[in-house]
Amino acid sequence: MSYDALVEKIKEKKSFLCVGLDSDITKIPEFLYHYEFPVFEFNRRIIDATVKFSVAYKPNLAFYESLGNKGWIELEKTVDYIRKNYPDVFIIADAKRGDIGNTSQLYAKAFFEQMDFDAVTVAPYMGEDSVSPFLSYENKWVILLALTSNKGADDFQYTKENEEYLFEKVLRISQKWAAKEKMMYVVGATRAEMLTKIREIVPDNFLLVPGVGAQGGSLAEVAKFGLNSNCGLLVNNSRAIIFADKTENFDSVAAQNAKEMQQEMELLLAQYGIL
Amino acid sequence: MSYDALVEKIKEKKSFLCVGLDSDITKIPEFLYHYEFPVFEFNRRIIDATVKFSVAYKPNLAFYESLGNKGWIELEKTVDYIRKNYPDVFIIADAKRGDIGNTSQLYAKAFFEQMDFDAVTVAPYMGEDSVSPFLSYENKWVILLALTSNKGADDFQYTKENEEYLFEKVLRISQKWAAKEKMMYVVGATRAEMLTKIREIVPDNFLLVPGVGAQGGSLAEVAKFGLNSNCGLLVNNSRAIIFADKTENFDSVAAQNAKEMQQEMELLLAQYGIL
Repeated sequence: MSYDALVEKIKEKKSFLCVGLDSDITKIPEFLYHYEFPVFEFNRRIIDATVKFSVAYKPNLAFYESLGNKGWIELEKTVDYIRKNYPDVFIIADAKRGDIGNTSQLYAKAFFEQMDFDAVTVAPYMGEDSVSPFLSYENKWVILLALTSNKGADDFQYTKENEEYLFEKVLRISQKWAAKEKMMYVVGATRAEMLTKIREIVPDNFLLVPGVGAQGGSLAEVAKFGLNSNCGLLVNNSRAIIFADKTENFDSVAAQNAKEMQQEMELLLAQYGIL
Repeated sequence: MSYDALVEKIKEKKSFLCVGLDSDITKIPEFLYHYEFPVFEFNRRIIDATVKFSVAYKPNLAFYESLGNKGWIELEKTVDYIRKNYPDVFIIADAKRGDIGNTSQLYAKAFFEQMDFDAVTVAPYMGEDSVSPFLSYENKWVILLALTSNKGADDFQYTKENEEYLFEKVLRISQKWAAKEKMMYVVGATRAEMLTKIREIVPDNFLLVPGVGAQGGSLAEVAKFGLNSNCGLLVNNSRAIIFADKTENFDSVAAQNAKEMQQEMELLLAQYGIL
């Protein structure tokens, strides 16, 4: 999906919500276990119920890989289903990959050719040649880890060289690798106080923001410091939407929770003059 | 596999060779395409031919994921084959994973329960809680990226804080997370000049060293600066062994090349008093 199409879709749906498909098989409603592909069944119903309120979906690879090759099929079926039924939805492989060039090239092939994801999350530690193979596809994106939402972010991401933190260096250096049309950054909502500084370095890029809700981040804060004139945010929510209910009505409850987030986002988009 | 068992196996085989199963389907001999699982057939023959000379195998996940769910089956079959036929071989998932705690937990499940790998490579950027879930399994290992062999290593790994490079900080901080029995480090052979400094920080840990051969690193240099009293090295070679020949004799040629590396390693182990 192109940058312009993503911005247009955000304005159309009045939402910058990304639904995280962290579809843990031990947490989905039990009645789905009767299906051959229960995780896909779960995802399909979540997607159908929430797609009016959400511009993006983000399967987290670990939840699929932990099921072996069958999990990989559940993932492939999920991506195919979105692509066929909702072609203008942005699909993110939350895979945190990154390796030497010829290896990253094959990861890119896995996520952009074998499956039709729009974007993949990439870890920056191995530098430019571990990231650039993902950038050679038209209208496909890298979402580079910058400042993550977990406690361990403090261990290395705040390493300070010449008054610059490592996550700031990652943002600054990677700006040379790609334009805003191909590069987003992960910035945890639990680090909203850093968003002003981050926006000075990457004013135009989209930020993918996990950690609102379950991890304690505030949507209003993220919007206040993170929005730019094209929105520039995708805020991810997973557990509070997909696991809010465990009955046969789980999808209606998910839709209701997604709708509430969308409505809060609509107010914020209006408040900051984006709609 | 335990630390002691690994050291014993190195002494028994007089080898610290790890064969990288970067089994690119476009590079394996064509006659294997007739098999239902050509990559597994390739791996099986490479393993049978080289296991006398090699203590470890390291499938690189990208090469399997790029084939979709079938690639995942090729991988599972490969790991099962090694485990059943050569139970005392060390198997490394070169996956470069790492995510927030509950997600890393599921990656650990994928590689240590769903498949029976001994170790998984992990990227350090997200810090302790992204690594620790892999450390909760007995006799299973984390191999943490420290200083990689690629050009992009210069982008962030040499970030300098208080006279300490980021890769040195990764080594130092992560020493608190696990003992040498569960933690190895990736150090590229192309960075052999840094091994003396690295050995000051992590004298006892195993180092997994890629980049000998195709990427230009020297085995003698790596041994000189990297060996410790328990060997402490696993040197990976992939292309120069597995893709040395494309005829029906590819496995014999692979065996010959592995044997030559083993013989060089035997000399080095003797020279440095480890055998």
